[in-house]
Amino acid sequence: MSYKSDIEIAREAQKKPIQEIGDKLGIPTEHLLPYGHDKAKVSQDYINSVQGNKSGKLILVTAINPTPAGEGKTTTTVGLGDGLNRIGKKAMICIREASLGPNFGMKGGAAGGGYAQVVPMEDMNLHFTGDFHAITSAHSLLSAMIDNHIYWGNELEIDVRRVQWRRVVDMNDRALRQINVSLGGVANGFPREGGFDITVASEVMAILCLAKDLQDLEKRLGDMIVAYRRDRSPVFCRDIKAEGAMTVLLKDAMQPNLVQTLENNPAFVHGGPFANIAHGCNSVTATTTALKIADYVVTEAGFGADLGAEKFMNIKCRKAGLAPDCVVLVATVRAMKMNGGVAKADLGAENVEAVKNGCANLGRHIENLKGFGVPVVVAVNHFVTDTDAEVAAVSEFAKAQGSEAILSRHWELGGEGAEALARRVAEVAESGTSQFSPIYPDEMSLFEKIETVAKRIYRADEVLADKKIRDQLKLWEEQGYGNLPVCMAKTQYSFSTDPNLRGAPTGHSVPVREVRLSAGAGFVVVVCGEIMTMPGLPRTPAAENIHLNEGGQIEGLF
Amino acid sequence: MSYKSDIEIAREAQKKPIQEIGDKLGIPTEHLLPYGHDKAKVSQDYINSVQGNKSGKLILVTAINPTPAGEGKTTTTVGLGDGLNRIGKKAMICIREASLGPNFGMKGGAAGGGYAQVVPMEDMNLHFTGDFHAITSAHSLLSAMIDNHIYWGNELEIDVRRVQWRRVVDMNDRALRQINVSLGGVANGFPREGGFDITVASEVMAILCLAKDLQDLEKRLGDMIVAYRRDRSPVFCRDIKAEGAMTVLLKDAMQPNLVQTLENNPAFVHGGPFANIAHGCNSVTATTTALKIADYVVTEAGFGADLGAEKFMNIKCRKAGLAPDCVVLVATVRAMKMNGGVAKADLGAENVEAVKNGCANLGRHIENLKGFGVPVVVAVNHFVTDTDAEVAAVSEFAKAQGSEAILSRHWELGGEGAEALARRVAEVAESGTSQFSPIYPDEMSLFEKIETVAKRIYRADEVLADKKIRDQLKLWEEQGYGNLPVCMAKTQYSFSTDPNLRGAPTGHSVPVREVRLSAGAGFVVVVCGEIMTMPGLPRTPAAENIHLNEGGQIEGLF
Repeated sequence: MSYKSDIEIAREAQKKPIQEIGDKLGIPTEHLLPYGHDKAKVSQDYINSVQGNKSGKLILVTAINPTPAGEGKTTTTVGLGDGLNRIGKKAMICIREASLGPNFGMKGGAAGGGYAQVVPMEDMNLHFTGDFHAITSAHSLLSAMIDNHIYWGNELEIDVRRVQWRRVVDMNDRALRQINVSLGGVANGFPREGGFDITVASEVMAILCLAKDLQDLEKRLGDMIVAYRRDRSPVFCRDIKAEGAMTVLLKDAMQPNLVQTLENNPAFVHGGPFANIAHGCNSVTATTTALKIADYVVTEAGFGADLGAEKFMNIKCRKAGLAPDCVVLVATVRAMKMNGGVAKADLGAENVEAVKNGCANLGRHIENLKGFGVPVVVAVNHFVTDTDAEVAAVSEFAKAQGSEAILSRHWELGGEGAEALARRVAEVAESGTSQFSPIYPDEMSLFEKIETVAKRIYRADEVLADKKIRDQLKLWEEQGYGNLPVCMAKTQYSFSTDPNLRGAPTGHSVPVREVRLSAGAGFVVVVCGEIMTMPGLPRTPAAENIHLNEGGQIEGLF
Repeated sequence: MSYKSDIEIAREAQKKPIQEIGDKLGIPTEHLLPYGHDKAKVSQDYINSVQGNKSGKLILVTAINPTPAGEGKTTTTVGLGDGLNRIGKKAMICIREASLGPNFGMKGGAAGGGYAQVVPMEDMNLHFTGDFHAITSAHSLLSAMIDNHIYWGNELEIDVRRVQWRRVVDMNDRALRQINVSLGGVANGFPREGGFDITVASEVMAILCLAKDLQDLEKRLGDMIVAYRRDRSPVFCRDIKAEGAMTVLLKDAMQPNLVQTLENNPAFVHGGPFANIAHGCNSVTATTTALKIADYVVTEAGFGADLGAEKFMNIKCRKAGLAPDCVVLVATVRAMKMNGGVAKADLGAENVEAVKNGCANLGRHIENLKGFGVPVVVAVNHFVTDTDAEVAAVSEFAKAQGSEAILSRHWELGGEGAEALARRVAEVAESGTSQFSPIYPDEMSLFEKIETVAKRIYRADEVLADKKIRDQLKLWEEQGYGNLPVCMAKTQYSFSTDPNLRGAPTGHSVPVREVRLSAGAGFVVVVCGEIMTMPGLPRTPAAENIHLNEGGQIEGLF
């Protein structure tokens, strides 16, 4: 049997006009700002008007540690959303926007897969509604204003060696990682070192995703630290007077984007911060708005549950006053096998023993998630080569962990294939069993927060950090930043900081290389290992094969 | 009497839903892709479908050399469009999109002024429909792919000292004018010199504005020269294999943007290439499409007629097979006075003698335009301090030149104030008197083309160019580029290359500093004097005062 590719399925989608999707949610025409016939932004006025509504149930989709086998977190999010609608619930999904640059490197990111997709997928992988371009512009404006301030006399006494604010571009361009700027003489400013990150790594992105409204956005932008003086005192964005104009540039980007699934169910696709140096979830505005206009909101967090769900709980939920009613932990039989030591080439053969061994990874995530007080349902995202015995092994394991595993065939069958999952998730969400709480209080010291995550989530024995890092954390506490949550940046492939340690490692240490203050976003980034904030292109970039075919369709992007 | 500001007038606009504007032009709903309720793109399919229609009349609005007094070229374009509609003609206007970056430096550019404006002006000065962001992305992709090619072995043998392709950003950021890239070690590539221009200076922008369709766009992108080898042989964009993906990124941007005037008449706002190193007109797609769906199309060209109109005729019309039926030359009494030697502070006082003296500038533009075989109507854009005697002096002068001057009050009265101008322009356009022809043939040598423009338009005695430049031109002729038109880059403030020489100077020389080949856009840029392709911000950038007010309206942008 042969399967259609994602793009083939997406092209066959029977999309409804976006206003019809808005109608399902009760959004009036004047408050739905169309971008073409299949995308729209929801107006800020409408968002304000629904604040008094009762909130729906919040369902977080997260996953085991990612493996090359693929888990299908977004696919499951979409499938579950369709499944809930299919069983008569008013549900919508909230996912992140895709970064433009990486599409031209490796095969592009899509919005789900198989028959569980969000459309229009081409647009979502290209410019979409321009949100990321707006973020790039706002970020670039601040960059230009900082160097302009220095050029015109540097009244704020910025130490040009200590400009923290790097530039951004939404492209994989390694040549820009480290550059010297303001060369060429007096008219071009004072030479200094600089560099570019990819747009999703911008603090502006994290802020857009955490801000409650435009006023909060402007305040947070003003709070960003852009440089230090020789005496190490911080220079803020508001000292540069850029936050007002940046807010103007971000005004439209703050409005969530409405699109639809292949089954014509509503989806917000909004925001997309890095899941390492930022918190990796879609925007608070989208999630909270969705909760006011739908009865069930299915959303996802980046990477595995040790990073994505941890940050979703400790950063996003804490700051936005959200509480998940149910967590869906996505696993696949293939990924269990890889965690159990099978090589990718051998995944096609049945291997129940390897599945059982690999379940250690699943088990630890279940335990961790329960530590937040939330009920966990395991979704086994079905793959065609899975055998009944393998699926049964996962189910038995989950049951033994006090959870439950439900096979879901949304990739193959769409919402119909996710009905069983949807029914159980709805039951759990309605049961009121969730007793959500972040795993550390605001008042805990920054270093203890790092230790709490490292020990309770990663199961490390210790956190290694030299005096310079500990002193830095103390200084920030003295400056009033001690109440912030920590945003861990480590490899997504393991509970540990070693990407090759699959399964459920113990006895390891978490070395902290660097800490960074994202004062506007409102977290302290804890860098454990190499974190790349500007990717490069591969030897043969996907871009070389991307083109319009004779029918005007995009080829090579997916 | 006090007047409302442009932004106050724009905010009071009674905008119609953009589909109603599309209906006037007969564009079906499915072919009008909305961006919000007041902007839309016209689909490529629809554009293809109207190619067989009869073409309307083309009216070019140009101006005398700009002075600090202001001339009001865009205002007159909008006013004339409204005036034509008011007298019962099916007319639309075609103007350029605004660059984002400069809005944050000085007071922002608007789309017309007074009661002759295009709306929504805030959007048009911010992200609009994302066209410029798409151009920045496409340009940036090629930049990244060039350095990536060098990084992975440089199979094309690019000389890293001879990479012609600079990077772009749509921001005034002088710190990026000259930079060193790929620093920081092996993983970041081979260090080399580089730099950023502002997006409107990108050859991609010029190509988008000259390309007939997506196929032509892709071909032209492939034709761009991005670098040279040590043996000076060119490396093309198509050698890098970037043109397909760039075309995908530009697919939507190629579709013209439909908006409306304050009087609800249709306007295409599309493209915006530099008027010095590029040709400075809106897109060929917009102009040719407008001609197929309206009976009168009013468009404008950048700077004064010596630059903008010359390029409109010799580059855009030649390449797109267009021919203007009437040219409107905009002048103001105040600008005549400045050309006659009056200082800006003294413009308020009547000075008929100065007006008469300043008319020399007007007279030469009339003569030049007639050299293209097109009839010229002078529009005197009325200002409140103008006296009857001053206006009469301009009228008499125009008559003596075999032209005519018509007072137009569109700034104050909208289309009603431009009725007289509209009636006369319609008469002239219908009269069939235009015998348009570019002023040099394709076959003329490149240097002779430069001489032709310098002598016939600038009235210079000679063109000064050293042997290196003449040899370069000859080399390009040998390589097959000899049939291209020349794109002059000189100051807009004077017929000469000295910005202080107002009026109608003679006896001057035109020194050629540099020549550049824009092989994809299809012209040879001839740089005469300092040309800034990356502006800086002023000491107190406008951005410092731009913000959202409590009502969510944008303040400080205009």
